[in-house]
Amino acid sequence: MLIPKSHPRAVSLHIREKLVQGYRSGLVVEEGLMAHGRGETFDYLIGEKTSKNALKAIKAAAKTLVLAKYPVISVNGNFAALCPKEIVNLAKIVGAKIEINLFYVTEKRKRAIANLLRKNGAKKILGLDPRSSRKIPKLDSARRVVDKNGIFSADVVLVPLEDGDRTLAMKKFGKKVITFDLNPLSRTAQSADITIVDNVIRGMRILIDISKKLTKKKNLKPDRFDNKKNLAEAILVMKNNLWRKAHA
Amino acid sequence: MLIPKSHPRAVSLHIREKLVQGYRSGLVVEEGLMAHGRGETFDYLIGEKTSKNALKAIKAAAKTLVLAKYPVISVNGNFAALCPKEIVNLAKIVGAKIEINLFYVTEKRKRAIANLLRKNGAKKILGLDPRSSRKIPKLDSARRVVDKNGIFSADVVLVPLEDGDRTLAMKKFGKKVITFDLNPLSRTAQSADITIVDNVIRGMRILIDISKKLTKKKNLKPDRFDNKKNLAEAILVMKNNLWRKAHA
Repeated sequence: MLIPKSHPRAVSLHIREKLVQGYRSGLVVEEGLMAHGRGETFDYLIGEKTSKNALKAIKAAAKTLVLAKYPVISVNGNFAALCPKEIVNLAKIVGAKIEINLFYVTEKRKRAIANLLRKNGAKKILGLDPRSSRKIPKLDSARRVVDKNGIFSADVVLVPLEDGDRTLAMKKFGKKVITFDLNPLSRTAQSADITIVDNVIRGMRILIDISKKLTKKKNLKPDRFDNKKNLAEAILVMKNNLWRKAHA
Repeated sequence: MLIPKSHPRAVSLHIREKLVQGYRSGLVVEEGLMAHGRGETFDYLIGEKTSKNALKAIKAAAKTLVLAKYPVISVNGNFAALCPKEIVNLAKIVGAKIEINLFYVTEKRKRAIANLLRKNGAKKILGLDPRSSRKIPKLDSARRVVDKNGIFSADVVLVPLEDGDRTLAMKKFGKKVITFDLNPLSRTAQSADITIVDNVIRGMRILIDISKKLTKKKNLKPDRFDNKKNLAEAILVMKNNLWRKAHA
């Protein structure tokens, strides 16, 4: 579709088109398009740039992933459509497994996502073989099904753009959860161990850079990271931006 | 799709499903689904209820519509999908024309929207006959095309869920513009004469009730309404809610 060049939000419109393409090639569902819209508003409120607190969270996430024994990156349709290359890169750098895990599951969607990840260099993809499926206890959505060689066995899980029920269930199941969530007030954001309040495209690129540097360091020790405090800072950024934008 | 009853945002999820249905029946485009998501976040920030300032704007809008000589309601896909009955009711009460006017135009979409409006009792629908089309000057998107018996001739136009370019162009073209926009910072919100910062389903129902009462009144005089001040109040509501939610 034609986006007029004179439109002041052309960049944001082009990212939208990326997701629309993801929708048309069967990766993204309608609900995912709406979820992207919700995220867009929060991104607008943080000023469409990576904030200091987001950077702090990304650093803590990088260290946690590099130090993890069995890290897993959980991939849904939006995540795949927005940054397939970054997913594969990050997995290689931190030695993480990639697992496809969807809220609205169909075999066709899984295949479309797997194909895109393979095109971007992914070798092994979990979450596809029904014989390896296991269930996360205390969760009634379709996403309770995980791969026994993936999330089921992981110590650390990166689950961007997640729903609240699942984050809570994974926490109860003993996983360390890292997430990207532009809504600092969501249940996912509030219950994860590390919440990166940032646009996933911007944030993933920084996460990759920092992780790459950390893998070369010796005697790496885990960060002390206060997620609640970090989220409060994110909320403050939004509050201040609302005010600033209103008086621009 | 199955929404788990235990999900704490089931109501919001069901409204989303309404829009997904609208998408599947050809009323709504992918971009419209994302726009709905953006609105959802703002609705969440105003506390998912009609604020005092929104009510003030609705009252001013009702009076303006009732007093208008040639009011027109501009309908796009999302607006039709969310409240077709309310559109037809409001048009009857205030004696407004209904015009279908789309950003992403296809004849098929126009027909789908027209059919839904007719099913909900609309008699005459403008914006369908190419022989009546006229152009709004200084606008490069497809939406510059309007109906000569509709928006082109109107004194007051209700254009909910609008894009900024068009609102500005209509203003320059001498129209009095009333809009629903959940983003008080948007160009549409900032340039309209009356901006109702409210969920369009909630707001339209109140607008109908108030308009109905006003049509029975004699010697109705136009309201003094300060849109900028009202928008500043909407921003304050969001700021305070962000804070309240963060400390709940």
